[in-house]
Amino acid sequence: MTRMPTTRSLVLISALAAAGLDVPAASRAQAPRDSALVERYGATAQRLIAAATRDTSAWLRIAELTDRFGSRISGSASLEHALDWVLEQMRRDGLEAVRGEPAMVPHWVRGDESLELVEPRATRLPMLGLGRSIGTPPGGITAPVLVVSDSNELAARASEAKGKIVLFDAPYVSYGETVTYRVRGAVLASRAGAVAALLRSVSPFEMRQPHTGVTQYDSTARPIPFAAISIEDAMMLHRMQLRGQPVVVTLKMQARMLPDVPSRNVVAELRGSERPDEVVIVSGHLDSWDVGTGAMDDAGGFVAAWEALLVMKELGLRPRRTVRLVGWTNEEYGTRGGLAYRDAHASELGSHDVAIESDGGVFRPSGFGFTGSDSAFAIVRAVGRLLASMGADTVTAGGGGTDIEPIMARGVPGMSLNDDGRRYFWYHHSESDTVDKLDAREVAKCVAAMAVMAYVLADLPEQLPR
Amino acid sequence: MTRMPTTRSLVLISALAAAGLDVPAASRAQAPRDSALVERYGATAQRLIAAATRDTSAWLRIAELTDRFGSRISGSASLEHALDWVLEQMRRDGLEAVRGEPAMVPHWVRGDESLELVEPRATRLPMLGLGRSIGTPPGGITAPVLVVSDSNELAARASEAKGKIVLFDAPYVSYGETVTYRVRGAVLASRAGAVAALLRSVSPFEMRQPHTGVTQYDSTARPIPFAAISIEDAMMLHRMQLRGQPVVVTLKMQARMLPDVPSRNVVAELRGSERPDEVVIVSGHLDSWDVGTGAMDDAGGFVAAWEALLVMKELGLRPRRTVRLVGWTNEEYGTRGGLAYRDAHASELGSHDVAIESDGGVFRPSGFGFTGSDSAFAIVRAVGRLLASMGADTVTAGGGGTDIEPIMARGVPGMSLNDDGRRYFWYHHSESDTVDKLDAREVAKCVAAMAVMAYVLADLPEQLPR
Repeated sequence: MTRMPTTRSLVLISALAAAGLDVPAASRAQAPRDSALVERYGATAQRLIAAATRDTSAWLRIAELTDRFGSRISGSASLEHALDWVLEQMRRDGLEAVRGEPAMVPHWVRGDESLELVEPRATRLPMLGLGRSIGTPPGGITAPVLVVSDSNELAARASEAKGKIVLFDAPYVSYGETVTYRVRGAVLASRAGAVAALLRSVSPFEMRQPHTGVTQYDSTARPIPFAAISIEDAMMLHRMQLRGQPVVVTLKMQARMLPDVPSRNVVAELRGSERPDEVVIVSGHLDSWDVGTGAMDDAGGFVAAWEALLVMKELGLRPRRTVRLVGWTNEEYGTRGGLAYRDAHASELGSHDVAIESDGGVFRPSGFGFTGSDSAFAIVRAVGRLLASMGADTVTAGGGGTDIEPIMARGVPGMSLNDDGRRYFWYHHSESDTVDKLDAREVAKCVAAMAVMAYVLADLPEQLPR
Repeated sequence: MTRMPTTRSLVLISALAAAGLDVPAASRAQAPRDSALVERYGATAQRLIAAATRDTSAWLRIAELTDRFGSRISGSASLEHALDWVLEQMRRDGLEAVRGEPAMVPHWVRGDESLELVEPRATRLPMLGLGRSIGTPPGGITAPVLVVSDSNELAARASEAKGKIVLFDAPYVSYGETVTYRVRGAVLASRAGAVAALLRSVSPFEMRQPHTGVTQYDSTARPIPFAAISIEDAMMLHRMQLRGQPVVVTLKMQARMLPDVPSRNVVAELRGSERPDEVVIVSGHLDSWDVGTGAMDDAGGFVAAWEALLVMKELGLRPRRTVRLVGWTNEEYGTRGGLAYRDAHASELGSHDVAIESDGGVFRPSGFGFTGSDSAFAIVRAVGRLLASMGADTVTAGGGGTDIEPIMARGVPGMSLNDDGRRYFWYHHSESDTVDKLDAREVAKCVAAMAVMAYVLADLPEQLPR
């Protein structure tokens, strides 16, 4: 896709001549901007990259955070303890304006839970209740299972679903596509008269481990308990049904919503040298699900943003605008951190240059995704080219993150760090989301990419055009 | 390695001239044998391969067996039910001399078990007691953990081990090398005064799932409870120790040995047309650990052998010698099936041509391993070349299997089916050893390889030279 610079963004490069550069026609419009940026920021970018990739401090910090506090679900003491620790560390790091910004968050608790196969043979199946699900009566729900491959099959067999537990055995296509069963499955099954629902975990590959995640109820159907099982067991129950064997399970879940509790977004800054009220956000979220240690989702993303600030500080770099580090709370089931930020900073959003979030693991970075005006996109792509030496220079259209969506909806351009996420969904929302899956050198490259992108965008003469 | 045919094996190819064949010098000695075998058996081998790979019946049978009975540990009702079912199916298949041959097997039961991290933070860690381990007192054992990377570190820090729980965090090198910690860890830790031991699971890759397997005690040290934890948690506890944090756990295990119980090797035959008392064994084991469904270890291996017999039967092929299918019992912790066979058939072992076992998963086959005389090895390599069209023609020196070791020790040549086992140890002895990991086309190729090798060896004019 070729995007032409607008008049406004051309101001940025007005001093430069485009002539004489031997570049492909499609790139010609960007060539002068690239040259100007390389001239102005090339050396600084290389210093940031060198400093960020010199050691494994980011990986060690992800390890320490996740080892110390484990999983950090909204509403839990472990999340609040982790936030306290991060605030203390940010103060020790000498960052500026360190603070917690309050947000009330939902409080879902899993409680004890189990799934027993009763027929055709008795065995316990690994399961995880889905976030926001209701529980079962104390004695559980024992019912026959109806396995369906997709919503069309459920529609076709709706008359068989009444009084049963519907299992959605939908093979993984992509996270975006397949996750609709996790989000909508309880409603779909309930409408057909099911008494509970089960989900084949939304993952391209796993090893008999369920993956949790948020689900939804709505006013069209009575809420029913909803839990994920492993891919392996979903396929097995499906085979049993295809053989004509009756499949009966007992599902027990103590899951319940408790009243909202106070939490915080944690914030720290490197104040801008010229325009401190203009802000570039670098961020990740600090809450996780209540399984594994949330190392990829998303301690890694937050720590990459944190370390990006530290690298600038260490090099004595202070951009024109403020770089604001935000560790969001409650990304996983409510976005209350993102909403609270939007409301607390409503009057300042016009001076928010851009918001960057890393929430896709911190594997080898490939670049960024961007959502904003065409003219801003052209600038961001040019900045991205400063990351060519790491192979992280691909800036694609479309980017953002759950936590920054509320301010993006108010006009703030949004960006996501993109990385080699091929294995991300193997571990996502499961017991195996742990720091050992992350490579320290790749994490350091993510820090470098965040540092260069945030620094340059915060230092450009003009705010990104909206 | 070039092995020259002996005088005795040359009899097989005495009618053929070696001259005029344009083959590399190293292969020249085998060329006449190859030609004779191809001439005699090439068309039959292709028919066997075509029949074996025509459908997915072997995969479906592994699925049905493992879905119906789940895991099948020695001493369990599920193993005996599975053996009953297999005997019934073998009779339905019209196989000959279908029978169970008795063996008394050990009976280890896991009981309830758990591992709680107490310090530095409270959380439950996934664990699996190791086979044959003793249990803990009912209240469990709460003690500090000493993490060591290997036995040298334990030796160097033996004075710190007294009264502690020793965790062996030995990175995976190879199964053969690293499994020594599973087998010997309790003895090593007990000698140093430890009250229990933990093991980083023996696997190159997993997803926070422990892998069980047999361990041993000996007279040099008091038995102590011994359990596997996930690779992830072993690394985490090690990091905690390196940070100077005290690590304390509570280990509870009800594991215990009960009196031996009767079990069976299941046996069926395709009786030889000319020399029915001479026997080629094709086999796998039907017991498993008590986690997952033992699809790779080793329902798949047994079913591949079973289906190999059925393919011969279906094609109306009856070799000179008897092909005997054996589904061994108690491979995992006692080899009582293999020992019982040795004793029951002691007087007939001289007329056992060869014993083949598949116990390494049934992924894409590459060929066979062989243990026997050089002259027999040359013949088996030549037979292996009949599998070239499937890429399964590599016969390597050294082969066998736990169950056939007792008769190999009495002189019977032994063989193992070799396959692409790169992922085998990802799943081995864990909850994720399930049939979905196997590819139906690859399983069918294993059946074909077993069928061709067993048929031709059973039909050769002469018994394999010892």
